[in-house]
Amino acid sequence: MTFDYAHQTDWPMTSGQHQSPIDIQTQHVQSSQLSAINWRGLYQAKTITGEATTLKASGIGAAYLNDRDFAFQQIHFHTPAEHLIDGQAAPIEWHLVHQSATGQLAVVAVFGRIGKPNSSLQGLLDQFTAQTSHELTTPVNLTELLPDTGTVYHYLGSLTTPPLSETVEWYVCADTVMIGEQQLAAYQQLFAANNRKIQPLNDRPIIAERF
Amino acid sequence: MTFDYAHQTDWPMTSGQHQSPIDIQTQHVQSSQLSAINWRGLYQAKTITGEATTLKASGIGAAYLNDRDFAFQQIHFHTPAEHLIDGQAAPIEWHLVHQSATGQLAVVAVFGRIGKPNSSLQGLLDQFTAQTSHELTTPVNLTELLPDTGTVYHYLGSLTTPPLSETVEWYVCADTVMIGEQQLAAYQQLFAANNRKIQPLNDRPIIAERF
Repeated sequence: MTFDYAHQTDWPMTSGQHQSPIDIQTQHVQSSQLSAINWRGLYQAKTITGEATTLKASGIGAAYLNDRDFAFQQIHFHTPAEHLIDGQAAPIEWHLVHQSATGQLAVVAVFGRIGKPNSSLQGLLDQFTAQTSHELTTPVNLTELLPDTGTVYHYLGSLTTPPLSETVEWYVCADTVMIGEQQLAAYQQLFAANNRKIQPLNDRPIIAERF
Repeated sequence: MTFDYAHQTDWPMTSGQHQSPIDIQTQHVQSSQLSAINWRGLYQAKTITGEATTLKASGIGAAYLNDRDFAFQQIHFHTPAEHLIDGQAAPIEWHLVHQSATGQLAVVAVFGRIGKPNSSLQGLLDQFTAQTSHELTTPVNLTELLPDTGTVYHYLGSLTTPPLSETVEWYVCADTVMIGEQQLAAYQQLFAANNRKIQPLNDRPIIAERF
Protein backbone atom coordinates (compact mmCIF):
# COMPACT_ATOMS: atom_id res chain seq x y z
CA MET A 1 0.00 0.00 0.00
CA THR A 2 1.05 3.61 -0.46
CA PHE A 3 0.99 6.22 2.27
CA ASP A 4 2.11 9.81 2.47
CA TYR A 5 4.28 11.11 5.33
CA ALA A 6 2.82 14.60 4.74
CA HIS A 7 -0.69 13.36 5.62
CA GLN A 8 -0.15 11.02 8.56
CA THR A 9 -3.49 11.70 10.20
CA ASP A 10 -5.15 10.05 7.17
CA TRP A 11 -3.31 6.76 7.72
CA PRO A 12 -5.68 3.83 8.30
CA MET A 13 -5.33 1.75 11.46
CA THR A 14 -6.31 -1.87 11.01
CA SER A 15 -7.43 -4.17 13.77
CA GLY A 16 -10.02 -6.88 14.22
CA GLN A 17 -8.14 -9.75 12.55
CA HIS A 18 -6.74 -11.27 15.78
CA GLN A 19 -9.82 -11.59 17.98
CA SER A 20 -10.76 -14.07 20.73
CA PRO A 21 -12.22 -16.58 21.51
CA ILE A 22 -11.38 -19.12 18.80
CA ASP A 23 -12.12 -22.75 18.04
CA ILE A 24 -8.84 -24.63 18.60
CA GLN A 25 -8.67 -27.34 15.95
CA THR A 26 -6.16 -29.71 17.46
CA GLN A 27 -5.13 -31.29 14.16
CA HIS A 28 -3.73 -27.91 13.08
CA VAL A 29 -1.71 -26.95 16.16
CA GLN A 30 2.09 -26.88 16.15
CA SER A 31 4.03 -28.66 18.89
CA SER A 32 6.66 -26.93 20.97
CA GLN A 33 8.90 -27.81 23.91
CA LEU A 34 8.33 -24.34 25.36
CA SER A 35 7.28 -24.26 29.01
CA ALA A 36 3.83 -22.63 29.05
CA ILE A 37 3.02 -22.15 32.74
CA ASN A 38 4.88 -22.45 36.01
CA TRP A 39 2.78 -21.43 38.99
CA ARG A 40 4.73 -19.67 41.72
CA GLY A 41 3.37 -18.33 44.96
CA LEU A 42 -0.14 -18.66 46.29
CA TYR A 43 -3.19 -17.54 44.32
CA GLN A 44 -5.65 -15.79 46.62
CA ALA A 45 -8.76 -13.70 45.99
CA LYS A 46 -8.84 -10.56 48.13
CA THR A 47 -11.80 -8.72 46.58
CA ILE A 48 -14.99 -10.05 44.97
CA THR A 49 -16.95 -7.94 42.50
CA GLY A 50 -20.41 -8.75 41.18
CA GLU A 51 -20.31 -7.32 37.65
CA ALA A 52 -23.31 -7.17 35.34
CA THR A 53 -22.25 -10.30 33.45
CA THR A 54 -19.83 -12.22 35.66
CA LEU A 55 -18.32 -12.82 39.08
CA LYS A 56 -14.84 -11.28 39.22
CA ALA A 57 -12.32 -11.79 42.02
CA SER A 58 -9.08 -9.81 42.27
CA GLY A 59 -6.10 -10.78 44.35
CA ILE A 60 -2.53 -11.99 44.44
CA GLY A 61 -0.57 -14.69 42.64
CA ALA A 62 2.33 -15.06 40.22
CA ALA A 63 3.40 -17.34 37.40
CA TYR A 64 6.12 -17.75 34.83
CA LEU A 65 4.39 -17.77 31.43
CA ASN A 66 6.81 -18.77 28.66
CA ASP A 67 9.51 -18.23 31.31
CA ARG A 68 8.56 -14.60 31.95
CA ASP A 69 7.31 -13.03 35.16
CA PHE A 70 3.59 -12.28 35.33
CA ALA A 71 1.47 -11.10 38.26
CA PHE A 72 -2.06 -12.44 38.70
CA GLN A 73 -4.70 -9.71 38.64
CA GLN A 74 -8.18 -11.25 38.59
CA ILE A 75 -10.29 -14.31 37.78
CA HIS A 76 -13.74 -14.27 36.17
CA PHE A 77 -16.10 -16.82 34.65
CA HIS A 78 -17.92 -17.50 31.35
CA THR A 79 -20.84 -19.92 30.87
CA PRO A 80 -20.75 -21.76 28.57
CA ALA A 81 -17.06 -21.78 27.67
CA GLU A 82 -15.82 -19.17 25.16
CA HIS A 83 -12.99 -21.15 23.56
CA LEU A 84 -13.88 -24.39 21.80
CA ILE A 85 -11.65 -27.44 21.36
CA ASP A 86 -12.43 -29.15 18.05
CA GLY A 87 -15.84 -27.49 18.05
CA GLN A 88 -16.77 -28.69 21.56
CA ALA A 89 -17.72 -26.29 24.37
CA ALA A 90 -17.19 -27.01 28.06
CA PRO A 91 -20.04 -25.89 30.36
CA ILE A 92 -17.86 -23.21 31.98
CA GLU A 93 -14.51 -21.47 31.40
CA TRP A 94 -12.63 -19.19 33.73
CA HIS A 95 -9.95 -16.65 32.90
CA LEU A 96 -6.94 -16.03 35.12
CA VAL A 97 -5.81 -12.57 33.96
CA HIS A 98 -2.11 -11.78 34.42
CA GLN A 99 0.04 -8.76 33.59
CA SER A 100 3.82 -8.28 33.17
CA ALA A 101 5.94 -5.26 34.18
CA THR A 102 5.62 -3.88 30.62
CA GLY A 103 1.83 -4.13 30.79
CA GLN A 104 1.60 -7.24 28.60
CA LEU A 105 -1.66 -9.09 29.31
CA ALA A 106 -1.63 -12.90 29.50
CA VAL A 107 -4.78 -14.88 30.23
CA VAL A 108 -4.80 -18.51 31.34
CA ALA A 109 -8.11 -20.05 30.26
CA VAL A 110 -9.34 -23.10 32.17
CA PHE A 111 -12.32 -25.33 31.36
CA GLY A 112 -14.52 -26.76 34.10
CA ARG A 113 -16.24 -30.14 33.90
CA ILE A 114 -18.89 -31.62 36.16
CA GLY A 115 -17.47 -33.75 38.94
CA LYS A 116 -16.62 -33.29 42.59
CA PRO A 117 -17.33 -29.88 44.12
CA ASN A 118 -14.54 -27.30 43.92
CA SER A 119 -13.70 -25.65 47.24
CA SER A 120 -12.13 -22.56 45.65
CA LEU A 121 -15.23 -21.89 43.54
CA GLN A 122 -17.41 -22.49 46.61
CA GLY A 123 -15.39 -19.92 48.53
CA LEU A 124 -16.12 -17.33 45.82
CA LEU A 125 -19.83 -18.21 45.54
CA ASP A 126 -20.29 -18.06 49.31
CA GLN A 127 -18.95 -14.52 49.52
CA PHE A 128 -20.55 -13.15 46.35
CA THR A 129 -23.13 -10.37 46.50
CA ALA A 130 -24.80 -9.06 43.34
CA GLN A 131 -23.67 -5.74 41.79
CA THR A 132 -21.28 -4.85 44.60
CA SER A 133 -17.55 -5.03 45.21
CA HIS A 134 -16.15 -5.87 48.61
CA GLU A 135 -12.87 -6.82 50.20
CA LEU A 136 -12.80 -10.22 51.84
CA THR A 137 -12.04 -10.47 55.54
CA THR A 138 -10.66 -13.96 54.83
CA PRO A 139 -8.96 -14.35 51.43
CA VAL A 140 -10.23 -17.23 49.26
CA ASN A 141 -7.53 -19.70 48.23
CA LEU A 142 -7.77 -20.23 44.44
CA THR A 143 -5.54 -23.31 44.24
CA GLU A 144 -8.34 -25.67 43.20
CA LEU A 145 -9.13 -23.50 40.18
CA LEU A 146 -5.59 -23.88 38.74
CA PRO A 147 -4.84 -26.89 36.53
CA ASP A 148 -1.39 -28.44 36.78
CA THR A 149 -0.90 -30.94 33.98
CA GLY A 150 -1.56 -31.36 30.28
CA THR A 151 -1.13 -29.47 27.05
CA VAL A 152 -1.56 -25.68 26.85
CA TYR A 153 -2.69 -24.07 23.58
CA HIS A 154 -0.91 -20.73 23.18
CA TYR A 155 -1.94 -18.07 20.66
CA LEU A 156 -2.14 -14.27 20.35
CA GLY A 157 -5.60 -12.74 20.59
CA SER A 158 -7.84 -10.17 22.22
CA LEU A 159 -10.00 -9.37 25.20
CA THR A 160 -13.36 -11.15 24.79
CA THR A 161 -15.38 -8.18 26.09
CA PRO A 162 -15.24 -4.55 24.98
CA PRO A 163 -12.82 -2.84 24.27
CA LEU A 164 -11.76 -6.14 22.58
CA SER A 165 -8.13 -4.92 22.43
CA GLU A 166 -5.78 -7.28 20.56
CA THR A 167 -3.18 -7.26 23.32
CA VAL A 168 -3.58 -10.68 24.94
CA GLU A 169 -1.34 -13.74 25.08
CA TRP A 170 -3.74 -16.66 25.52
CA TYR A 171 -2.82 -19.89 27.33
CA VAL A 172 -5.79 -22.25 26.95
CA CYS A 173 -5.41 -25.36 29.13
CA ALA A 174 -6.48 -28.70 27.66
CA ASP A 175 -6.63 -30.16 31.18
CA THR A 176 -10.05 -29.60 32.75
CA VAL A 177 -10.83 -28.90 36.41
CA MET A 178 -13.80 -30.43 38.23
CA ILE A 179 -16.63 -28.38 39.73
CA GLY A 180 -19.86 -29.63 41.31
CA GLU A 181 -23.09 -29.85 39.31
CA GLN A 182 -24.84 -27.73 41.95
CA GLN A 183 -22.03 -25.17 41.83
CA LEU A 184 -22.53 -24.74 38.09
CA ALA A 185 -26.30 -24.43 38.61
CA ALA A 186 -25.76 -21.83 41.34
CA TYR A 187 -23.50 -19.80 39.04
CA GLN A 188 -26.03 -20.02 36.18
CA GLN A 189 -28.76 -18.78 38.54
CA LEU A 190 -26.70 -15.65 39.12
CA PHE A 191 -25.63 -14.92 35.53
CA ALA A 192 -27.07 -15.42 32.02
CA ALA A 193 -24.90 -16.93 29.28
CA ASN A 194 -21.86 -14.68 28.68
CA ASN A 195 -19.80 -16.36 25.99
CA ARG A 196 -18.60 -14.23 23.09
CA LYS A 197 -19.09 -15.87 19.70
CA ILE A 198 -16.15 -17.70 18.09
CA GLN A 199 -13.90 -15.44 16.01
CA PRO A 200 -11.93 -16.35 12.86
CA LEU A 201 -8.39 -17.64 13.41
CA ASN A 202 -7.12 -15.94 10.23
CA ASP A 203 -3.35 -16.27 9.85
CA ARG A 204 -2.51 -17.04 13.49
CA PRO A 205 -0.55 -20.14 14.51
CA ILE A 206 -1.59 -22.07 17.63
CA ILE A 207 1.27 -23.64 19.59
CA ALA A 208 0.78 -26.68 21.83
CA GLU A 209 3.14 -26.22 24.77
CA ARG A 210 4.21 -28.33 27.72
CA PHE A 211 2.82 -27.82 31.20
CA MET B 1 -19.18 -0.09 30.62
CA THR B 2 -22.25 -2.16 29.85
CA PHE B 3 -22.54 -4.53 26.90
CA ASP B 4 -25.16 -6.99 25.77
CA TYR B 5 -24.32 -10.58 24.79
CA ALA B 6 -27.41 -10.61 22.53
CA HIS B 7 -25.95 -7.80 20.38
CA GLN B 8 -22.26 -8.68 20.07
CA THR B 9 -21.81 -7.15 16.63
CA ASP B 10 -22.49 -3.74 18.20
CA TRP B 11 -19.57 -4.05 20.62
CA PRO B 12 -16.97 -1.29 20.20
CA MET B 13 -13.36 -2.22 19.51
CA THR B 14 -10.86 0.25 20.90
CA SER B 15 -7.35 0.74 19.62
CA GLY B 16 -5.02 3.63 19.02
CA GLN B 17 -3.82 4.18 22.59
CA HIS B 18 -0.59 2.17 22.26
CA GLN B 19 1.00 3.62 19.13
CA SER B 20 4.64 4.05 18.07
CA PRO B 21 7.05 5.83 17.88
CA ILE B 22 7.32 7.54 21.28
CA ASP B 23 9.61 9.98 23.01
CA ILE B 24 11.49 7.96 25.65
CA GLN B 25 11.91 10.23 28.67
CA THR B 26 14.74 8.55 30.50
CA GLN B 27 13.89 10.00 33.90
CA HIS B 28 10.62 8.04 33.81
CA VAL B 29 11.87 4.59 32.78
CA GLN B 30 11.86 1.63 35.16
CA SER B 31 15.02 -0.44 35.59
CA SER B 32 15.04 -4.19 35.17
CA GLN B 33 17.63 -6.97 35.24
CA LEU B 34 15.87 -8.68 32.33
CA SER B 35 18.09 -9.66 29.42
CA ALA B 36 16.80 -7.69 26.43
CA ILE B 37 18.76 -9.03 23.43
CA ASN B 38 21.11 -11.93 22.82
CA TRP B 39 22.16 -12.16 19.17
CA ARG B 40 22.57 -15.71 17.91
CA GLY B 41 23.57 -16.77 14.44
CA LEU B 42 24.60 -14.57 11.56
CA TYR B 43 22.42 -11.72 10.28
CA GLN B 44 22.48 -11.66 6.49
CA ALA B 45 20.41 -9.83 3.89
CA LYS B 46 19.33 -12.10 1.02
CA THR B 47 16.87 -9.82 -0.81
CA ILE B 48 16.83 -6.02 -1.21
CA THR B 49 13.58 -4.20 -1.97
CA GLY B 50 13.32 -0.57 -2.97
CA GLU B 51 10.00 0.47 -1.49
CA ALA B 52 8.34 3.84 -2.07
CA THR B 53 9.57 5.22 1.25
CA THR B 54 12.52 3.08 2.38
CA LEU B 55 15.17 0.52 1.57
CA LYS B 56 14.14 -2.86 2.94
CA ALA B 57 16.36 -5.95 3.10
CA SER B 58 15.03 -9.40 4.05
CA GLY B 59 17.17 -12.28 5.16
CA ILE B 60 18.22 -14.58 7.97
CA GLY B 61 19.21 -14.11 11.59
CA ALA B 62 18.01 -15.04 15.07
CA ALA B 63 18.00 -13.56 18.55
CA TYR B 64 16.75 -14.26 22.02
CA LEU B 65 14.57 -11.28 23.01
CA ASN B 66 13.63 -11.39 26.69
CA ASP B 67 14.94 -14.98 26.55
CA ARG B 68 12.52 -16.05 23.82
CA ASP B 69 13.32 -17.28 20.33
CA PHE B 70 12.79 -14.81 17.50
CA ALA B 71 13.69 -15.08 13.81
CA PHE B 72 14.95 -12.01 11.94
CA GLN B 73 12.75 -11.08 9.00
CA GLN B 74 13.83 -7.72 7.57
CA ILE B 75 15.64 -4.44 8.18
CA HIS B 76 14.54 -1.01 6.94
CA PHE B 77 15.50 2.61 7.59
CA HIS B 78 13.89 5.86 8.77
CA THR B 79 15.42 9.37 8.36
CA PRO B 80 15.38 11.17 10.66
CA ALA B 81 14.89 8.76 13.58
CA GLU B 82 11.31 7.93 14.64
CA HIS B 83 11.87 7.33 18.35
CA LEU B 84 13.24 10.21 20.41
CA ILE B 85 15.36 9.97 23.55
CA ASP B 86 14.57 12.88 25.90
CA GLY B 87 13.22 14.82 22.92
CA GLN B 88 16.35 14.35 20.79
CA ALA B 89 16.27 12.73 17.33
CA ALA B 90 19.19 10.83 15.77
CA PRO B 91 19.71 11.47 12.03
CA ILE B 92 18.71 7.89 11.16
CA GLU B 93 17.07 4.87 12.80
CA TRP B 94 16.82 1.34 11.50
CA HIS B 95 14.37 -1.38 12.47
CA LEU B 96 15.35 -5.03 12.75
CA VAL B 97 11.97 -6.76 12.51
CA HIS B 98 11.70 -10.18 14.19
CA GLN B 99 8.88 -12.70 14.60
CA SER B 100 8.33 -15.61 17.01
CA ALA B 101 6.67 -18.97 16.30
CA THR B 102 3.35 -17.59 17.59
CA GLY B 103 3.59 -14.64 15.20
CA GLN B 104 4.59 -12.12 17.87
CA LEU B 105 6.41 -9.17 16.26
CA ALA B 106 9.46 -7.70 18.00
CA VAL B 107 11.40 -4.81 16.51
CA VAL B 108 14.92 -3.83 17.58
CA ALA B 109 15.36 -0.11 16.86
CA VAL B 110 18.91 1.18 16.39
CA PHE B 111 20.05 4.80 16.06
CA GLY B 112 22.87 5.76 13.70
CA ARG B 113 25.32 8.60 14.35
CA ILE B 114 27.86 10.16 12.01
CA GLY B 115 31.30 8.59 12.26
CA LYS B 116 33.26 5.98 10.36
CA PRO B 117 31.58 4.38 7.34
CA ASN B 118 29.52 1.26 8.00
CA SER B 119 30.36 -1.67 5.74
CA SER B 120 26.99 -3.40 6.21
CA LEU B 121 25.07 -0.26 5.20
CA GLN B 122 27.44 0.20 2.25
CA GLY B 123 26.70 -3.36 1.11
CA LEU B 124 22.98 -2.55 1.06
CA LEU B 125 23.41 0.81 -0.70
CA ASP B 126 25.69 -0.73 -3.36
CA GLN B 127 23.10 -3.33 -4.34
CA PHE B 128 20.00 -1.13 -4.09
CA THR B 129 17.91 -0.37 -7.16
CA ALA B 130 14.85 1.91 -6.93
CA GLN B 131 11.32 0.43 -6.87
CA THR B 132 12.44 -3.15 -7.48
CA SER B 133 13.06 -6.24 -5.39
CA HIS B 134 15.89 -8.62 -6.18
CA GLU B 135 17.68 -11.52 -4.57
CA LEU B 136 21.35 -10.96 -3.90
CA THR B 137 23.91 -13.23 -5.52
CA THR B 138 26.19 -12.51 -2.55
CA PRO B 139 24.36 -12.01 0.78
CA VAL B 140 25.18 -8.80 2.68
CA ASN B 141 26.48 -9.39 6.20
CA LEU B 142 24.50 -7.14 8.59
CA THR B 143 26.80 -7.49 11.61
CA GLU B 144 27.91 -3.84 11.60
CA LEU B 145 24.29 -2.68 11.89
CA LEU B 146 23.74 -4.58 15.18
CA PRO B 147 24.68 -2.84 18.45
CA ASP B 148 26.10 -4.98 21.21
CA THR B 149 26.27 -2.98 24.43
CA GLY B 150 24.24 -0.49 26.44
CA THR B 151 20.75 -0.06 27.77
CA VAL B 152 17.68 -1.20 25.80
CA TYR B 153 14.34 0.57 26.28
CA HIS B 154 11.53 -1.98 26.05
CA TYR B 155 7.86 -1.06 25.64
CA LEU B 156 4.71 -2.33 23.87
CA GLY B 157 3.61 -0.42 20.79
CA SER B 158 2.63 -0.53 17.14
CA LEU B 159 3.86 -0.65 13.59
CA THR B 160 4.92 2.90 12.56
CA THR B 161 3.41 2.60 9.07
CA PRO B 162 -0.11 1.52 8.07
CA PRO B 163 -1.82 -0.71 9.20
CA LEU B 164 -0.33 0.64 12.51
CA SER B 165 -1.30 -2.59 14.30
CA GLU B 166 -0.63 -2.54 18.07
CA THR B 167 1.16 -5.87 18.04
CA VAL B 168 4.83 -4.92 18.44
CA GLU B 169 7.32 -5.46 21.28
CA TRP B 170 9.82 -2.61 20.87
CA TYR B 171 13.47 -2.86 21.93
CA VAL B 172 15.01 0.60 21.41
CA CYS B 173 18.80 0.55 21.82
CA ALA B 174 20.44 3.46 23.63
CA ASP B 175 23.79 2.48 22.11
CA THR B 176 24.29 4.15 18.71
CA VAL B 177 26.05 2.68 15.67
CA MET B 178 28.34 4.74 13.42
CA ILE B 179 27.65 5.35 9.73
CA GLY B 180 29.56 7.60 7.32
CA GLU B 181 28.40 11.14 6.59
CA GLN B 182 28.42 10.36 2.86
CA GLN B 183 26.40 7.18 3.48
CA LEU B 184 23.69 9.19 5.24
CA ALA B 185 23.72 11.72 2.39
CA ALA B 186 23.45 8.90 -0.19
CA TYR B 187 20.47 7.43 1.66
CA GLN B 188 18.76 10.84 1.90
CA GLN B 189 19.26 11.31 -1.86
CA LEU B 190 17.24 8.15 -2.41
CA PHE B 191 14.41 8.75 0.08
CA ALA B 192 12.55 11.74 1.53
CA ALA B 193 12.01 12.02 5.30
CA ASN B 194 9.95 9.04 6.51
CA ASN B 195 9.58 9.44 10.26
CA ARG B 196 6.13 9.03 11.74
CA LYS B 197 5.25 11.72 14.27
CA ILE B 198 5.68 10.99 17.99
CA GLN B 199 2.65 9.32 19.59
CA PRO B 200 1.40 9.70 23.19
CA LEU B 201 2.80 7.22 25.71
CA ASN B 202 -0.51 7.09 27.62
CA ASP B 203 -0.43 4.48 30.41
CA ARG B 204 2.50 2.40 29.11
CA PRO B 205 5.58 1.69 31.24
CA ILE B 206 9.03 1.78 29.62
CA ILE B 207 11.53 -0.73 31.01
CA ALA B 208 15.30 -0.17 30.81
CA GLU B 209 16.85 -3.60 30.31
CA ARG B 210 20.37 -5.02 30.20
CA PHE B 211 22.14 -5.81 26.96
